[in-house]
Amino acid sequence: MSELCESAGDPGLLRRAEKLDAADELRALRDRFVLDDVVYLDGNSLGALPAHVPDRLADVVRREWGELRIRSWQESGWWTAPERIGDRIAPLVGAAPGQIVVGDSTSVDVFKALVAAVRMARQEQQRGSGPRDEILVDAATFPTDGYIAGSVARMTGCTLRPVVPEEVPGALSGRTAAVLLNHVDYRTGRLHDLPSLTAAVHEAGAYAVWDLCHSAGALPVGLDEHGVALAVGCTYKFLNGGPGAPAFLYVRRALQDRFDSPLPGWNSHAEPFGMRDTYVPARGAVRGRVGTPDILSMLALEAALDVWDGVSVEAVRAKSLMLTDFFLDCVAAYVPTGRVECVTPRAHEERGSQVALRCPDAGPVMERLIAAGVVGDFRHPDVLRFGFTPLYLRFADVERAARVLGRVLAGT
Amino acid sequence: MSELCESAGDPGLLRRAEKLDAADELRALRDRFVLDDVVYLDGNSLGALPAHVPDRLADVVRREWGELRIRSWQESGWWTAPERIGDRIAPLVGAAPGQIVVGDSTSVDVFKALVAAVRMARQEQQRGSGPRDEILVDAATFPTDGYIAGSVARMTGCTLRPVVPEEVPGALSGRTAAVLLNHVDYRTGRLHDLPSLTAAVHEAGAYAVWDLCHSAGALPVGLDEHGVALAVGCTYKFLNGGPGAPAFLYVRRALQDRFDSPLPGWNSHAEPFGMRDTYVPARGAVRGRVGTPDILSMLALEAALDVWDGVSVEAVRAKSLMLTDFFLDCVAAYVPTGRVECVTPRAHEERGSQVALRCPDAGPVMERLIAAGVVGDFRHPDVLRFGFTPLYLRFADVERAARVLGRVLAGT
Repeated sequence: MSELCESAGDPGLLRRAEKLDAADELRALRDRFVLDDVVYLDGNSLGALPAHVPDRLADVVRREWGELRIRSWQESGWWTAPERIGDRIAPLVGAAPGQIVVGDSTSVDVFKALVAAVRMARQEQQRGSGPRDEILVDAATFPTDGYIAGSVARMTGCTLRPVVPEEVPGALSGRTAAVLLNHVDYRTGRLHDLPSLTAAVHEAGAYAVWDLCHSAGALPVGLDEHGVALAVGCTYKFLNGGPGAPAFLYVRRALQDRFDSPLPGWNSHAEPFGMRDTYVPARGAVRGRVGTPDILSMLALEAALDVWDGVSVEAVRAKSLMLTDFFLDCVAAYVPTGRVECVTPRAHEERGSQVALRCPDAGPVMERLIAAGVVGDFRHPDVLRFGFTPLYLRFADVERAARVLGRVLAGT
Repeated sequence: MSELCESAGDPGLLRRAEKLDAADELRALRDRFVLDDVVYLDGNSLGALPAHVPDRLADVVRREWGELRIRSWQESGWWTAPERIGDRIAPLVGAAPGQIVVGDSTSVDVFKALVAAVRMARQEQQRGSGPRDEILVDAATFPTDGYIAGSVARMTGCTLRPVVPEEVPGALSGRTAAVLLNHVDYRTGRLHDLPSLTAAVHEAGAYAVWDLCHSAGALPVGLDEHGVALAVGCTYKFLNGGPGAPAFLYVRRALQDRFDSPLPGWNSHAEPFGMRDTYVPARGAVRGRVGTPDILSMLALEAALDVWDGVSVEAVRAKSLMLTDFFLDCVAAYVPTGRVECVTPRAHEERGSQVALRCPDAGPVMERLIAAGVVGDFRHPDVLRFGFTPLYLRFADVERAARVLGRVLAGT
């Protein structure tokens, strides 16, 4: 660790950090993770390791695979893992059980959901009305969503139109089949208005697919409450499921019988071991399954979700906002004026669980930060991105991160 | 273990087993696996655990994820794992490096390959000729391939036509866009003639996609040698990669620039961290990647492939045929005449690495077999399926399995 992080801090901010940590009702949760003296502000890219996961995974490998082998598909509950783990994620995103299934990558789940959305919108089309042949996509989306949306458009005979989320209501028309939106922008950390955008899309007779990668596990999503039809999300960021842990897919219960998957693998068949020639989709969330689930990654995720026992997303959200507020205050105190531009909204209702700061030399700055024990990430071309995971971050960490950032940016 | 397996064996067969085991050049490989006194004839469903995998995976979890966290994407080689592990599989299926990528499930990889096959065939279409609008699929295929082929047909404007593999040459026409074939039939264990079928499909101006789930790691495939364009395969059967380990996708080098994926995720972008709005596909095998790879399952597979060090697929194939020949001889000796019908071909050139026996009460028979320490599997409606993994099976195991089967089938 360099001397950067040992420089003296502002006494007022240090006292504030101390008080905030002392009052933090979630502070004991940090012990549920493997952490060291690095300030880890990259949990929005890869969550830290929950402390009990290694032992659980060792048991999966040595006993369930090594000893029980094929029997584990039944006896160790491997076969039902995708929907069982989906039900563990459900309360974290405001969903009743039976609507989420875990499996495949986010990109693949976006493909399933967006094709299904187009098909549902077309099913409902009024006789005599024009075709629903347009897909709207968040113009600032994480690239993979845009690429997949392009493929869906091509394969369903639609055109793809990028629109910034705030302008979606005005862009909707009788041609709109589906809209792919991010709940939180991966680069800026802006939180979009899921309830009103969902309502506007449905009002237009289209379906919205929500990408929850940067909100699941960080803030209340309220899928059921806000009438969301389809959503996908990532489990290796704020859900700490491990590198490349499988994504999740939400299909609202009322729409499940109409969920028409472009990837109808045998795992979503009504009778998967019947070995039927004809595909008959299962009912319920399992209709979103495809092939054999990757059990090792999936059961590591299941174990990782134990850290949420007794934790409410509302408490996590409250602490998240306190962390990002405090970070912004510390940045204002420690970083030379004008050296960075904050691109994350100040308003709580527009902020996710990250702070993004723009500066022209963001790449080398992040390298120096990491070398000094503060890990965030760099997003092309000029963004320093800091993710705040309330389950394991302390206010003292936040003060230290901003202090080191100030020194690095001052070039001393 | 019941008394069934302790019944006296035929002295001639026991002596033969002993001699075959003594002469087996691969016998020491058994020590590379975690095994017990169960006779495990289900390695064609889930391969046994290689002994060194648990320690390697523990290191991935505790050190690479737990300590290095996000740094491991570069420092631990996570990012390049899909193509690196593809290159480890390549020699086992007769492919030069740079043509295989690991990731997603077999079903998803079938989808990518089959859509790409249709697109390639259409690219080459002669002016003035009729549309290529038909996909042929192995009529006896493992169901998921048929379901996915149905989805591909629907999304590419093709009709789907089931044909038994031997009749594919006669079914090909100027309308054929793509053909989805199994190298080894999952139920009967029949080995299809990959070289001549591939040639016939290409001759017709179409592309074949080969499903290698039941041949990869069991027999020489010769992808490069036989001019195969596209292939997919499973890594948790004869490659012992662990439950639900990611599948692999082979795209012949000469065709990679024309591989047009329906799942263009950010991992297959020419510049994945450039965060570009426009999709520009990477060159080479990585074009088959989609989203973030499931690292835990993937690195368990990578470790599992170490058991192949110094092992030739030709030696594995030779032993495989000796194992299945010997099993058939033992079944003839121990099983009451007429009690089962063997549906696996006798001819070596038509046999994979399994033996399938048909009997009306196959379900309960398999249950009794498993209770007696002989693990095969049951395939609806009437098939007892026994897979033979030459890396860890002994001829003594084979004799014992047939002996126990004889007792179970005799009902004593």
